[in-house]
Amino acid sequence: MKAAIITIGDEILIGQIIDTNSSYMAKALDKIGIATYEMASISDDKSHILKTLHEVQNNFDVVLITGGLGPTKDDITKKTFCDYFDDVLVQNDAVLDQVKSIIEGIYKKPITQLNRDQALVPSKSKVLFNKMGTAPGMLMEHQNTVFVSLPGVPYEMKYLIDNEVIPYLVEKFERPYIVHKTLMTYGRGESIIAEQIEDWETNLPSFIKLAYLPSPGKVRLRLTARGSDEAVLINSVLSEIEKLKPLIGDIIIGYDEEETIEVILTRALSEKHLTLATAESCTGGKIAQLISSVPGSSACFNGGIVAYSNQIKIDVLKVNSDTIRQFSVVSKEVAKEMALNCRSIFNTDYAIATTGNAGPTKGNSEAEIGTVFIAIATPNEVFVEEFNFGQPREKVTDRAVYKALEWLYKEISKN
Amino acid sequence: MKAAIITIGDEILIGQIIDTNSSYMAKALDKIGIATYEMASISDDKSHILKTLHEVQNNFDVVLITGGLGPTKDDITKKTFCDYFDDVLVQNDAVLDQVKSIIEGIYKKPITQLNRDQALVPSKSKVLFNKMGTAPGMLMEHQNTVFVSLPGVPYEMKYLIDNEVIPYLVEKFERPYIVHKTLMTYGRGESIIAEQIEDWETNLPSFIKLAYLPSPGKVRLRLTARGSDEAVLINSVLSEIEKLKPLIGDIIIGYDEEETIEVILTRALSEKHLTLATAESCTGGKIAQLISSVPGSSACFNGGIVAYSNQIKIDVLKVNSDTIRQFSVVSKEVAKEMALNCRSIFNTDYAIATTGNAGPTKGNSEAEIGTVFIAIATPNEVFVEEFNFGQPREKVTDRAVYKALEWLYKEISKN
Repeated sequence: MKAAIITIGDEILIGQIIDTNSSYMAKALDKIGIATYEMASISDDKSHILKTLHEVQNNFDVVLITGGLGPTKDDITKKTFCDYFDDVLVQNDAVLDQVKSIIEGIYKKPITQLNRDQALVPSKSKVLFNKMGTAPGMLMEHQNTVFVSLPGVPYEMKYLIDNEVIPYLVEKFERPYIVHKTLMTYGRGESIIAEQIEDWETNLPSFIKLAYLPSPGKVRLRLTARGSDEAVLINSVLSEIEKLKPLIGDIIIGYDEEETIEVILTRALSEKHLTLATAESCTGGKIAQLISSVPGSSACFNGGIVAYSNQIKIDVLKVNSDTIRQFSVVSKEVAKEMALNCRSIFNTDYAIATTGNAGPTKGNSEAEIGTVFIAIATPNEVFVEEFNFGQPREKVTDRAVYKALEWLYKEISKN
Repeated sequence: MKAAIITIGDEILIGQIIDTNSSYMAKALDKIGIATYEMASISDDKSHILKTLHEVQNNFDVVLITGGLGPTKDDITKKTFCDYFDDVLVQNDAVLDQVKSIIEGIYKKPITQLNRDQALVPSKSKVLFNKMGTAPGMLMEHQNTVFVSLPGVPYEMKYLIDNEVIPYLVEKFERPYIVHKTLMTYGRGESIIAEQIEDWETNLPSFIKLAYLPSPGKVRLRLTARGSDEAVLINSVLSEIEKLKPLIGDIIIGYDEEETIEVILTRALSEKHLTLATAESCTGGKIAQLISSVPGSSACFNGGIVAYSNQIKIDVLKVNSDTIRQFSVVSKEVAKEMALNCRSIFNTDYAIATTGNAGPTKGNSEAEIGTVFIAIATPNEVFVEEFNFGQPREKVTDRAVYKALEWLYKEISKN
């Protein structure tokens, strides 16, 4: 079972937008045992689309295509489909009703010819009804390949993948099993880990593959097993993980690729009935935003203060102005006061604070670019540490955010 | 001049990570007049990499490749290069010094054999020295194609693209000119815009191409001109834009694809010497985070409060508990008080507040999922509006954030 994923759109090829659709579709296919062999992004150009359809025909069982289904002139996927499959466009009444109810019902606009054309579909295609928008998905079986064309708007694509495409593929194909398990580690580089687990890696069974996925401050280790007996795959992967624990158990913080540090942290807090607040300067609200992005986080996250200016640190967070004057705003002392006061203002068990200089210029701070102080106030004490996260700005704030979350998780796990 | 971009890594094909590198590289090539014709993501598999190198050879002037250059066993790009180009790996002393200085100097670890192997490069390649990490880039000219292999870590890739690859390509090739201009519009759907500008679009000169890029609440219109005389291209694009102004000038908020709404808003505030604070419930700090991500935003952004729980709205934002009891927490009245109190706590000219129910469940709120109230406190009055942003959670908060920023920009532009 092999799939290809194709995204159509010049906006991707000139780097104007990042393609996030392919990743979502690949993950959905992977879960049902269909491996994506290749992804390609191509232009809104008829000959390019036709050439690509020819290349994938019969080489893949499934080809998922997004983009080019909008109402405007640069959207040519449907017409190109008709050329390739020797078909004609016909009106689909259910889709036309849906288009009318969105345009006239929600947007309170009269329906136009361009809107009406959204209801045209190739006559041989199975229409995938799009409850989230005006452009339907289309599915064509041709020789040995299933072609699926979906709109490029991410939440429309997601709806159709989850509710139409995956159920169809599950029904149609017998599929092998793919089992992934990802270990999240932090605090050690990939080359050191690789040496520590070298013998283990060499002795992995041939149907299990290991990948190292490093990112700032952490390395994920992904085990992938493929085969026809799901129970055997799961057992083999779990038993390999057991063998790893004596080797690197001290740096493993989680076992699920879906689980980000904010999810793990939020669950740990909720299970222990602990609460958290944030006081952010250089991270600008990103810690609060990540935690609050977790459904159900309101159980443990009371809120936060983004104290971007000195005056707000003094007025709202009640940092002593003498502390700022004496030690400068990017200092251990200010970070400490921010965390302590935040904990008391929000009346929480834990509070976390950041103050630093993310660049690009030194501004009115004396601290080197990249310097960040992180402080954690716990029910018993307050910890503070200095970091230098280098450059550029985006890397400094990202690393500060993840370091703060990881450190906090470690503290909470101690209890 | 045609380029292909190839990313190597199973983590992309199973949907574990989103490829952001291709977009950055495409944008950099586009700026120097090299069009990316195709992007592909392929697996960490020798035969797949070899097959892909064969396919691109001589069909493209430039092939940029990322990934597979780490120190671990799943990193096979360098060895595969040697197979393809009939070459051998040799040690590069400058790279070895760099590896030593990072591992021993920064990480304070003894250097291992895996680290040393990072300094091995194909003997025929030009080494692209990577100041940001241990894996060097490599450049091979083979027949009519320039192959460039870069590490997949985004900031290392970015450093090498900006400082090594682009200067090399600028020196080597005579390139055509590509001129893009993007108009950012908001508040009107793409099909309505398309009808309003239909005649204009039909009469565009053949060397100018128009694309519609819709996203929730806004549509970007991109004009792309290609040719050999840069001045002609720029003048033609600008004159076409002038013709557009009478047609849709009322919905255009900016002219630069790089300019996000947070950049435009921050500049408008700074130029007018106005200040802003945020009081966020359902958006969880994302408005603060976007604004503070803009370099220099500290001039106009004083800070914000993430008031996630009711108690914090009462304790920190000083919302009257009776207001919450009487109207519920997701209400016009609470949004208004949040904005007004935030403006006074932070002592700013403007304050913006959000309260809503982003889902996935209704929780203890009476409001429908998707309901969000946005309030803006200005020096003279306070505005509040109710929205329903549908589902899922992520879409609700994203749309609320962008609606808040756009509305605020509109208010500020009135003065």
